[in-house]
Amino acid sequence: MLDLEAIKTAYERLEGVVHHTPFSYAPILSEMSGYEVYLKKENLQRTGAFKLRGAFNKIATLVESGKKGGVVAASAGNHAQGVAFAAKHFGIEATIVMPESTPLTKVQGVKAFGAKVILHGSNYDEAYAYAVKYGTEQGYTFVHPFTDEEVMAGQGTVALEMLEVQPELDAIVVPVGGGGLISGMAVAAKSIRPSCKVIAVSADGAPAMHLSYDAKKPIDTTSVRTIADGIAVRDTSPETLSYILKYVDDFEGVCEDEIASAILFLLERQKLLVEGAGSVGVAALMHSKIDLPKGSKIGIVLSGGNIDVTMLSLIIEKGLMKSARKMKLMVTLVDKPGALQSFTQILTEVGANIVHIGYDRTSIDLEFGDAHVSVALETKGEEHQALIRKKLTEGGFVFKEEH
Amino acid sequence: MLDLEAIKTAYERLEGVVHHTPFSYAPILSEMSGYEVYLKKENLQRTGAFKLRGAFNKIATLVESGKKGGVVAASAGNHAQGVAFAAKHFGIEATIVMPESTPLTKVQGVKAFGAKVILHGSNYDEAYAYAVKYGTEQGYTFVHPFTDEEVMAGQGTVALEMLEVQPELDAIVVPVGGGGLISGMAVAAKSIRPSCKVIAVSADGAPAMHLSYDAKKPIDTTSVRTIADGIAVRDTSPETLSYILKYVDDFEGVCEDEIASAILFLLERQKLLVEGAGSVGVAALMHSKIDLPKGSKIGIVLSGGNIDVTMLSLIIEKGLMKSARKMKLMVTLVDKPGALQSFTQILTEVGANIVHIGYDRTSIDLEFGDAHVSVALETKGEEHQALIRKKLTEGGFVFKEEH
Repeated sequence: MLDLEAIKTAYERLEGVVHHTPFSYAPILSEMSGYEVYLKKENLQRTGAFKLRGAFNKIATLVESGKKGGVVAASAGNHAQGVAFAAKHFGIEATIVMPESTPLTKVQGVKAFGAKVILHGSNYDEAYAYAVKYGTEQGYTFVHPFTDEEVMAGQGTVALEMLEVQPELDAIVVPVGGGGLISGMAVAAKSIRPSCKVIAVSADGAPAMHLSYDAKKPIDTTSVRTIADGIAVRDTSPETLSYILKYVDDFEGVCEDEIASAILFLLERQKLLVEGAGSVGVAALMHSKIDLPKGSKIGIVLSGGNIDVTMLSLIIEKGLMKSARKMKLMVTLVDKPGALQSFTQILTEVGANIVHIGYDRTSIDLEFGDAHVSVALETKGEEHQALIRKKLTEGGFVFKEEH
Repeated sequence: MLDLEAIKTAYERLEGVVHHTPFSYAPILSEMSGYEVYLKKENLQRTGAFKLRGAFNKIATLVESGKKGGVVAASAGNHAQGVAFAAKHFGIEATIVMPESTPLTKVQGVKAFGAKVILHGSNYDEAYAYAVKYGTEQGYTFVHPFTDEEVMAGQGTVALEMLEVQPELDAIVVPVGGGGLISGMAVAAKSIRPSCKVIAVSADGAPAMHLSYDAKKPIDTTSVRTIADGIAVRDTSPETLSYILKYVDDFEGVCEDEIASAILFLLERQKLLVEGAGSVGVAALMHSKIDLPKGSKIGIVLSGGNIDVTMLSLIIEKGLMKSARKMKLMVTLVDKPGALQSFTQILTEVGANIVHIGYDRTSIDLEFGDAHVSVALETKGEEHQALIRKKLTEGGFVFKEEH
């Protein structure tokens, strides 16, 4: 049964292996929001995410009850690493089934913990079905990523640690995908401090649990699409939904741009790499979706940090464009000596650094003799960009902006 | 006088304002190196760097002795923010002189703490000279970034916190630019635990203190060039050098590629944004420049996290190339229908994702009828890249690789 007792038992099992991650005051977010904001840094957890807690607690209970015959799980992400790490710790066999398209780095990450990897199926559902079947055939225990009371109890330890550091929290803000983290945390928080609000945040691109919360019944979706891949869950688990309906006070959604801006904020201002799923709470705060009395003491869970750096480069790029620190222009020049020079001279005069340039005189929408020049500029903010537009227009240049 | 007493007094002054940043075990670096490695995360310090400690201690002593007439400093970086923050805390006026070329974001960062900013001079030395002159004229106290005992005493508190958490450290590894941090830390560490080795690391692109250490006398350099801008100091301070000669057991240098790979490692594996200066200790460890008995307990200071995200994107890019996760090819095709298709088909077959493509048939080193195609590919490691080379060669394609 998922109750405070089970979560406290999990807490003891995790001791000495799973980090008590920092739960620290965030001055900038506090000033921005008017709340007293603390961040629970589960991105600094071993394996890079809270998922280790649930997997570790589950496998510990198996070992305690003598079931050492091995475990199997389906995941290409944080759950896979959590299961592999915990199984290695207890010296039992782990098999992780991953979709065939899983990037090699993720496969290697799990293999590094000594787990066996089976690549099967073209998506998560096919990998999942195969993992269940394979587990039955081999006599392995299947470790579900969230619909499992021992897993939820393990995740609930995040709330115990937060309330240990800040016993008077007014609210906790928790990312939701399958709902395992928030179920465990809500049971813990409401048992210890009933006045503590529990606020759920999901990605609008993966809204199954959000829709289910509003409808008060399980609703499945047909597809998910979000940079918050850690919470990209298509179907609603009735088990976690029942905890969410019982304990969650408010449920908010954030869009992709909001998630991206939170990732960039956490990187630049908090010096932390947080994945999309881990950033939704801060995204909700930054975009005024948390509605509590001013001065409320709130704890936001940064649930994980496993984001691909290639993806991160794209997010930085978009974030720079959005915050007016980068600008892309396409200008039409007369294709003759000196035309480009007079264009770049204006850019030099206004102090705009050119980071990329392209030149094309074959485009079909050009008059003969003209050329398209596309430039990417480093700029210093809205005012600087306005100055650049003004000077180019004064100089007689016709340009379009890319966004 | 810079002694343990002064550092302990600084420690008390800083209490409640300056964070005790986490000093935590780093399992992956430990496994890689054979040492027991702990990281002191001063990138998570307020203002994003340890520099706040020294500035705060200095300004606190001024206030204690009744000198509330204002302070002035020259810096475009972490020292500027530290001084501005501390001055605001004590309600005294701060003026920061920055070179004229300082990016607007850095100017705004300091203004956000209520400091007055003067843009003066084309480089740091000119800004520095003006700040000293301006301070004298206005009756403001000049706060030097390192040649100041109260500043050094403040920086020394980093070592007190580390030894509080891990009293049996065998070595501390400290980034060196001007030498203020390592002077304070060495005095603290050697006083409390004389057996603790003090290892200095500087960037090869800014070697003044390293050269001075080897020569045992101050050596100035004519220019600095490194991504570790926080330790890009051209001239050697005889004061800090004297502490370094007395206490530092070993001095190592790291090159730009080593720093970049450490930044990428800390981001991907530790989920931390650390600036170049803050990464040199990990760079030295990763590239086997730390020579201690196996199993030694070592503490590495991540001194700051203030790195421009545009720079970070470039570092990620280089890091991906170096670790065989990205590949750039330039292939010469016969310029006719279907040529590009047969090329991309091979890439599809080997599972190499094209992230950028360019097409040029005007290059002067092309035969008539040929074209250059440049592609950037996402790849899965060395073996995958070898396969791509093999398949393209078998397919009759001639290509060059960019590095």
